[in-house]
Amino acid sequence: MKFATFRTADGQSWGLVKGDEVVDVGCVVADRYPDLKSAIAADALSVVHDARGQARRIPISAVEWLPVIPNPDKILCIGLNYEMHRQETGRTEVENPTVFTRFANSQIGHGAGLVRPKVSTDLDFEGELAIVIGKAGRYISKADAWGHIAGYSCYNDGSVRDFQRHTHQFTPGKNFPGTGGFGPWMVTPDEMGEIGPQRLQTRVNGEVVQDALLSQMIFDIPTQIEYLSKFTRLEPGDVIASGTPGGVGAKRKPPLWLKPGDAVEVEIGGVGLLRNPVTQEA
Amino acid sequence: MKFATFRTADGQSWGLVKGDEVVDVGCVVADRYPDLKSAIAADALSVVHDARGQARRIPISAVEWLPVIPNPDKILCIGLNYEMHRQETGRTEVENPTVFTRFANSQIGHGAGLVRPKVSTDLDFEGELAIVIGKAGRYISKADAWGHIAGYSCYNDGSVRDFQRHTHQFTPGKNFPGTGGFGPWMVTPDEMGEIGPQRLQTRVNGEVVQDALLSQMIFDIPTQIEYLSKFTRLEPGDVIASGTPGGVGAKRKPPLWLKPGDAVEVEIGGVGLLRNPVTQEA
Repeated sequence: MKFATFRTADGQSWGLVKGDEVVDVGCVVADRYPDLKSAIAADALSVVHDARGQARRIPISAVEWLPVIPNPDKILCIGLNYEMHRQETGRTEVENPTVFTRFANSQIGHGAGLVRPKVSTDLDFEGELAIVIGKAGRYISKADAWGHIAGYSCYNDGSVRDFQRHTHQFTPGKNFPGTGGFGPWMVTPDEMGEIGPQRLQTRVNGEVVQDALLSQMIFDIPTQIEYLSKFTRLEPGDVIASGTPGGVGAKRKPPLWLKPGDAVEVEIGGVGLLRNPVTQEA
Repeated sequence: MKFATFRTADGQSWGLVKGDEVVDVGCVVADRYPDLKSAIAADALSVVHDARGQARRIPISAVEWLPVIPNPDKILCIGLNYEMHRQETGRTEVENPTVFTRFANSQIGHGAGLVRPKVSTDLDFEGELAIVIGKAGRYISKADAWGHIAGYSCYNDGSVRDFQRHTHQFTPGKNFPGTGGFGPWMVTPDEMGEIGPQRLQTRVNGEVVQDALLSQMIFDIPTQIEYLSKFTRLEPGDVIASGTPGGVGAKRKPPLWLKPGDAVEVEIGGVGLLRNPVTQEA
């Protein structure tokens, strides 16, 4: 199943994506589950089966996509998790995942403008697989990790590189409003199948700039969940952006910076296609 | 005025600290302002004047202190913001503040146990001045920065050093549950006066381990707010932990790690005293 958060003329809701339609489950169960995160937390995604009959269906062309989870408690980003990207950044090999964070207010949904801020022209793309946590936990073992996942999505960990490199800590470059693309929806694990053979591609104006298989992650998903849950309690709706392959714009010669009018696509096999046009902050 | 968040047998509330009593304003205005953050966001701290007559008074010995803002949207931490600490870490001088983040679920209130996790013995203290944002804003100028502050508090940016040094990004070492002391209360700017001459001291079992004046910050508060608001929109209740002076345990020879039974105090002139006993995670 595919779940999404979206907005219509009636406001924000969430629901099931079926072909060319969105089943607006949220409008039926809003009193119990006002958003997708709350339904995940209650392990209630199955309520969609009960609610589907009553829910209105909306053509996907008529909704404004919002970030799959607009209000996560935490967004944990894994850096340097594909070998070609580690090499292009010149970073040494490490025994544990590199972890930085994004704030929820930096996120945008599918189709929304990826915002180049007025204080920089060094806006870069990072196509990634996003993992949405289903079941809360601390000290989760690798063996148990798969049971804590609610779904998978596409993420564009948009980065403002000069701010990222002001100091050794990445926070400023990773948190500009309108730079974190997340969507269009999340796909449940049963539909996704085993993680590995799926292709992750990023395209700028149709040209492939990143291309890898999910199996090429240095730290696989169970290792990420085991490590993250050592230092923080993972909560339903938490998002893990699992790292980007080689090919980022900053490491190209000359650098490939995103500019207004460009379009960035992150496509992952079995998940979907996240597309965001680049806009200029006024 | 001093504002705090606390818990009694009746649940969580917030209010005004007056001498040896807490005025439980929250219980009177809970329908409009369920927590201190919502009252700050509505610029409604003045409601305490109206509500004081109706509010019950509780001896401060009878409340469990919670983090001043238990649910901030963002916690922004400034690294390496006192010269002696920068030198002891061997970091080079930089033109912009170093910024990392904490999650809200890592925070504890005054008196609560500072938790040494079972996966590390390298638990360290970092006494800091916390700034609570009052008025939201983006691209805030230095000149306007003071007008965006709701109050000041003590912060212990408790750090698990081996996890902090797993990679170049600090996130894992800065987010263990029960490591971020915040309190006991916040003091409003009118009561605090000009920032600078106040002394910041950290003590472990009564012995002074950090000692500085707030005027010794490398990046002063307006500079912090100006820089942070370039890359993120500051919201009411957001917390800035403004950096720690020299003397951290990790840089002593031999290192001074916190162990169960220790007590850590962060005291700031004009603000108050934050005290947390160190406990061991089961």
